Amino acid sequence: MEKSKVLIVGGTGYIGRRIVKASLAQGHPTYVLMRPDIGLAVDKIQMILSFKAAGARVVEASLDDHRSLVDAVKQVDVVVSAMSGYQLSRQLKVVDAIKEAGNIKRFLPSEYGIDPARMEHALAPGRITFDEKMKIRRAIEEANIPHTYVSAGCFAAYFAPNLSQLGTLLPPKEKVQVYGDGNVKVAFMDEDDVGTYAIKTIDDPRTLNKTVYLRPSENILTQMELIAKWEKLSGKFLEKIHIPNDEFLASMEGAELFHQEAVGHFHHIFYEGCLTNFDIGDGAEEASLLYPEVQYTRMDEYMKPYL
Amino acid sequence: MEKSKVLIVGGTGYIGRRIVKASLAQGHPTYVLMRPDIGLAVDKIQMILSFKAAGARVVEASLDDHRSLVDAVKQVDVVVSAMSGYQLSRQLKVVDAIKEAGNIKRFLPSEYGIDPARMEHALAPGRITFDEKMKIRRAIEEANIPHTYVSAGCFAAYFAPNLSQLGTLLPPKEKVQVYGDGNVKVAFMDEDDVGTYAIKTIDDPRTLNKTVYLRPSENILTQMELIAKWEKLSGKFLEKIHIPNDEFLASMEGAELFHQEAVGHFHHIFYEGCLTNFDIGDGAEEASLLYPEVQYTRMDEYMKPYL
Repeated sequence: MEKSKVLIVGGTGYIGRRIVKASLAQGHPTYVLMRPDIGLAVDKIQMILSFKAAGARVVEASLDDHRSLVDAVKQVDVVVSAMSGYQLSRQLKVVDAIKEAGNIKRFLPSEYGIDPARMEHALAPGRITFDEKMKIRRAIEEANIPHTYVSAGCFAAYFAPNLSQLGTLLPPKEKVQVYGDGNVKVAFMDEDDVGTYAIKTIDDPRTLNKTVYLRPSENILTQMELIAKWEKLSGKFLEKIHIPNDEFLASMEGAELFHQEAVGHFHHIFYEGCLTNFDIGDGAEEASLLYPEVQYTRMDEYMKPYL
Repeated sequence: MEKSKVLIVGGTGYIGRRIVKASLAQGHPTYVLMRPDIGLAVDKIQMILSFKAAGARVVEASLDDHRSLVDAVKQVDVVVSAMSGYQLSRQLKVVDAIKEAGNIKRFLPSEYGIDPARMEHALAPGRITFDEKMKIRRAIEEANIPHTYVSAGCFAAYFAPNLSQLGTLLPPKEKVQVYGDGNVKVAFMDEDDVGTYAIKTIDDPRTLNKTVYLRPSENILTQMELIAKWEKLSGKFLEKIHIPNDEFLASMEGAELFHQEAVGHFHHIFYEGCLTNFDIGDGAEEASLLYPEVQYTRMDEYMKPYL
């Protein structure tokens, strides 16, 4: 089967750049949207040049210029969005363009996190992410756009080497905060693997109009198991300080918005187990089962460079 | 001669990362300072991991912990700072540590721009960069720290493909603003070459306590010559709009601080010719003459990927 042509929106972002690389690596004709918003962001421009050097085509269009977006979309078969958290609702413009273009065989909106369809009970203010993702899903479904929702676990750089501590990305040296008993199952994902699996789904009839969860079995770990892996790697024992749920939630009070959002998400992940407390069931798929050929990165391997 | 050990401060910055790569490429035992300021900057952390994978050693220290800085400095022979514009005066902490450590054979403070010693007449508010660099130079000289000041030309990504237009880094498509007659000589530098030349100087007795200018002859171009190179590459002729100096300076009024600073610097570079309107003379050196083995990037080559 011929590989579909893919347009990536948000291709210079943290996950987007990995999706671009995965698309190129998997042999798709790869188009990267460049928006005027890029302004003086020299790192993003140099990244786009590096994509071009690796074989990607650069397409200029603006979210505020519907016609330019429709023209961009018409050049490809698949659109993958990886627009960042604070731009999620701007994806409605992309949905509108896809609707008008009428040729898109698959659209992946920017998801790659906790499944928003399971987060009706989520805490404010962090729930805004879920609400906005659901708004985009509704627009996609109302327009009958063929789609796949890729629901990933915790991005490893933000959750693994820091042993899931807030406010740092580096390994703790003496003490580690443990959420409750630390025995809730969590899914951790190497960010490159998120890109690989996302692109794997786009031409796959098994993933059409479904949610694909990234829950590879060896990356389903409790926080205590993660800590034990790091202790084994580093040869150093860490003092564990267990934080009860109510004490943890109380730390939101008076904190900055960013911190409040983080505490809410951590609560759902580490106390509730929102990434793993459900069966995937019939209407959805699990990526590592669909694509057993992908050698996903295990967390001890991911943490090694931090030694 | 054994290669000196180099500590790079600001190694994840725009120029710093290139200095780290040049230091590794030129075979120096390379140490990269990691400061607690890195916080949640995931791109910087991943960059540091990539330096480590390429052979660099990571040294943790804080500018606010003198002892930790002295310990870091004591591990090496040479310190190269590439701290960013808004942190220049914090380099005084580095100077203090070098002074106490007493073992440093060469220090390169964060310069890599217009020579501040020639900018006493510079316009506010942009002159703050020059004033702060001079403050650091005075501290270095008072402490008798062996040093080299690397004075580069315009960083290509900010000045070449955009044909030196303000507010964009991308090539103009129809019209181009020309500063005055566009015939003032300007020095353009590939940023990777800035790193290469900077590291070349550190073990070189010819550059001890001197300013080294980066003015490779084929990269000394007027704005009109730069435009002509792009027109030749792209095969498209651009309409030139010549801006008289007074009109250009008037655009500062009421503008944001960042824009005012930029207009001032552009005025000095493109109307005054501050990068080229002097002879290098006896107390200083020119890098491409010292190191003719370096194949520096020419601007047509630099601009090609932007086609």
